[in-house]
Amino acid sequence: MRARDLAVEYETVSVDSDAMEAARLMAEHRLPGLLVLDERGEPKAILPASQMVKVLVPAYVIEDPTLAAVVDEKHADRLCAALAGRRVGDCLPGKAEPPPVADPDDTALEVAALMARVRSPLVAVAERNITEPGGREKSRTRLLGVITASHLLHELLGAAGPPDTT
Amino acid sequence: MRARDLAVEYETVSVDSDAMEAARLMAEHRLPGLLVLDERGEPKAILPASQMVKVLVPAYVIEDPTLAAVVDEKHADRLCAALAGRRVGDCLPGKAEPPPVADPDDTALEVAALMARVRSPLVAVAERNITEPGGREKSRTRLLGVITASHLLHELLGAAGPPDTT
Repeated sequence: MRARDLAVEYETVSVDSDAMEAARLMAEHRLPGLLVLDERGEPKAILPASQMVKVLVPAYVIEDPTLAAVVDEKHADRLCAALAGRRVGDCLPGKAEPPPVADPDDTALEVAALMARVRSPLVAVAERNITEPGGREKSRTRLLGVITASHLLHELLGAAGPPDTT
Repeated sequence: MRARDLAVEYETVSVDSDAMEAARLMAEHRLPGLLVLDERGEPKAILPASQMVKVLVPAYVIEDPTLAAVVDEKHADRLCAALAGRRVGDCLPGKAEPPPVADPDDTALEVAALMARVRSPLVAVAERNITEPGGREKSRTRLLGVITASHLLHELLGAAGPPDTT
């Protein structure tokens, strides 16, 4: 089984997407995170739902949690103001790094090694180094999907069942 | 809304659970992780599926991923041997820390502040400091459930809708 066969669709947003819309997407579909693509459509970062929670919580509450109890939750519209007019790119943590990217032809074990090395909950699968008709290589990436850790675990464990006859 | 009302059931295993069974649980239900409880039933760590992937991949493959391509995946039963006879506790990363634990009476914002501070994908909700009939305080914890980041996001954003009349 190759990475291209293991890749599944995953919710993506652009760095330029509206931050509030991204937060609502995660909230409504109970997503642990979103894959953020840059202006060229290349994987730029994983935006965990916990990071969005952090953006919503006023800094003074994070520093002194006892203040949280005295903030009236009915004024949650003030919390949401933290996202107004912001883009997804503004919400990424400063140290956000691109997710690991596997080649469509990588084996499940290669993907697993990549995931294990960088301790990522998912690996993006993308075609890279697309060559222009003129022969010049462009660094453009075409995202095929992602492979989550639990999906990969299923593949690695399942492969221990009856012998593969392909 | 209080933490006790936001807490939902989550798959838990004990540090003494069989590692292979825990891996299969994550794989079959596509869980991003499991909550690991210690011998006394207290939250001890979050075991991410990616950590289980790491345990399965031979160390020499993690160090030199080009070797992954030459390992015959049909011999995946050798991968699974990495879990044979091991307990969940043996699979935890060395630096595994207990997940943040909220009090049942904490507000959503208090839980959010806790989550934001420690950058955890979930917060456990547990009753603590149960007092024995004799008046002695026991440090036993009773787990009520967990609150995931996306669930909390839903609560924080949803609260910005029509005013709460409670």
